[in-house]
Amino acid sequence: MIKEIGVQELDAGSFIDEKVEDIRRAVGEGRAINALSGGVDSSTVTMLGHRALGARLQTVFIENGLMRSGEADRVVALFRELGVSVEVVEARGQFFDALKGISDPEQKREAITQTFYKKVFGRLVKESGAKDLLQGTILTDVDETVAGIKRQHNVFEQLGIDPQKAFGYRILEPLVCLRKDGVRKVGRALGLPVELFERIPFPGPALAARVIGEATPERIETVRKATAVVERLLESSGAFQYLAILHEDKVTGMREGKRQFGGQIEVRCWDSVDARTAAPTRLAFDLLERLAQEILAEVPDIVSVTYNIASKPPSTIEAV
Amino acid sequence: MIKEIGVQELDAGSFIDEKVEDIRRAVGEGRAINALSGGVDSSTVTMLGHRALGARLQTVFIENGLMRSGEADRVVALFRELGVSVEVVEARGQFFDALKGISDPEQKREAITQTFYKKVFGRLVKESGAKDLLQGTILTDVDETVAGIKRQHNVFEQLGIDPQKAFGYRILEPLVCLRKDGVRKVGRALGLPVELFERIPFPGPALAARVIGEATPERIETVRKATAVVERLLESSGAFQYLAILHEDKVTGMREGKRQFGGQIEVRCWDSVDARTAAPTRLAFDLLERLAQEILAEVPDIVSVTYNIASKPPSTIEAV
Repeated sequence: MIKEIGVQELDAGSFIDEKVEDIRRAVGEGRAINALSGGVDSSTVTMLGHRALGARLQTVFIENGLMRSGEADRVVALFRELGVSVEVVEARGQFFDALKGISDPEQKREAITQTFYKKVFGRLVKESGAKDLLQGTILTDVDETVAGIKRQHNVFEQLGIDPQKAFGYRILEPLVCLRKDGVRKVGRALGLPVELFERIPFPGPALAARVIGEATPERIETVRKATAVVERLLESSGAFQYLAILHEDKVTGMREGKRQFGGQIEVRCWDSVDARTAAPTRLAFDLLERLAQEILAEVPDIVSVTYNIASKPPSTIEAV
Repeated sequence: MIKEIGVQELDAGSFIDEKVEDIRRAVGEGRAINALSGGVDSSTVTMLGHRALGARLQTVFIENGLMRSGEADRVVALFRELGVSVEVVEARGQFFDALKGISDPEQKREAITQTFYKKVFGRLVKESGAKDLLQGTILTDVDETVAGIKRQHNVFEQLGIDPQKAFGYRILEPLVCLRKDGVRKVGRALGLPVELFERIPFPGPALAARVIGEATPERIETVRKATAVVERLLESSGAFQYLAILHEDKVTGMREGKRQFGGQIEVRCWDSVDARTAAPTRLAFDLLERLAQEILAEVPDIVSVTYNIASKPPSTIEAV
């Protein structure tokens, strides 16, 4: 049972001191490794790990082909500013091979998890000599996985999986007592720039979680384009999270006077404090129409756009 | 080439006189038959046909299992008030048999068309001795079918199909020069009650056009329940049309703290004059949330609700 630290009672300064100490004690004189996706959780863990271990922490960005447009460059540049060097590891082929032919959301997650922890990290850990993987699991990930709502890719112990046996390395989770709001507080205290620690959440399986059905390179490219529109237009909305989902269903549309059986993008935009409950943001209709128009203009083969109007629960924030 | 009669130039009184004369001339001393679905077009044609032929027109309501909740009773009662007797023909089994295993929208339409014109009407025409079928095809149906946008179930001649050869009877289409607004004007002049001639359009393939994927009795029942909620809550919206669509895609939801992989209902509500172009109605967010809440509460296995925000074109009014 993990003891939650609420954001009110959280003293970021002493939390950081304590976790730095924990990480040093755990890693000892050895080396550790961590994967930075550019999200709030992994960015905070990167800063915490570097404060604890300095150059003994190797930080990598896994290019899995499922990230948003320009993501690798953005993350590398941002952390260079912070004095942290990030190595980009090319792994697109491995992930798309593993995802081939898989439509079931849980099987997609599992394919990504196995590729990430076994194949890609198994090799990286061996090459680097690290004994520990630092990662940004938070309490909501654990809760949702244990409750059977959604298998988070980064939760093992609570499911009875020993990473040492399964993958050959230990996993350290310094943020596991916190929820999203607590992580933001800690990230701020660690000097992360505003645009980063206030970034909207992005799921572990990345854009593979944003397509219903098979995550092919083509379908991922489609939802990547829609995601760019949604993020550009909703950046100033103040919402907790916003996302584009590519549906597998085809619907009737018309272009140049002819029927076109095309795809549908669903836009979700959420008001939430901690992701446990959430309500659709009451966006102005002008903005909803602009979202639809720009997606229809910029994303090939899309003829229909919808906006989610259901709350969590019974919806969840992501669709897959 | 059909010569359109615009609603501005349409004189309902002389239009009715002329069409009554046309129908009498075509049917002569014989009998005719027509199918009344309860929509604006078929209701107007029913009144026009009865004015022309009286008891020599047999009006039937085909219970195909794809109609909205309580539809047969409603239509029969309404026309009884108008002095028109409507016979309900039970044909559920025939339609669901024909729809079994079919997911493609065009094949669904074709299955319904064949069942309707060949099986059900083939028999009815034989039994009644009628030589003519009166039906409410309008110009938009013809346009969309000819342009290849959507195969309307009631368009034959323009596709090179001779109903006499294909089905054994002639088809008379007194409304084929009109669009929806013109039909309403004529319906009003024929004494149809407000609740009927101002009714929102409903597609020929009925609820089969409101499910993406196979139209099983269970899936039709699901979308029937969602349709009842949408029609109840949007009745006073003043919109041109509103509808519920059951998607085939499954999305993640949660009920009682557990993950539930469930269905999604898409709500569409349109502002339009003549259905050729249309924009999503700018419904208040309170109403959008109420729509979602009531659908989630009343329709089993639904965990997500969206609202269409794309205009026609490139969307179409219906999804299938």
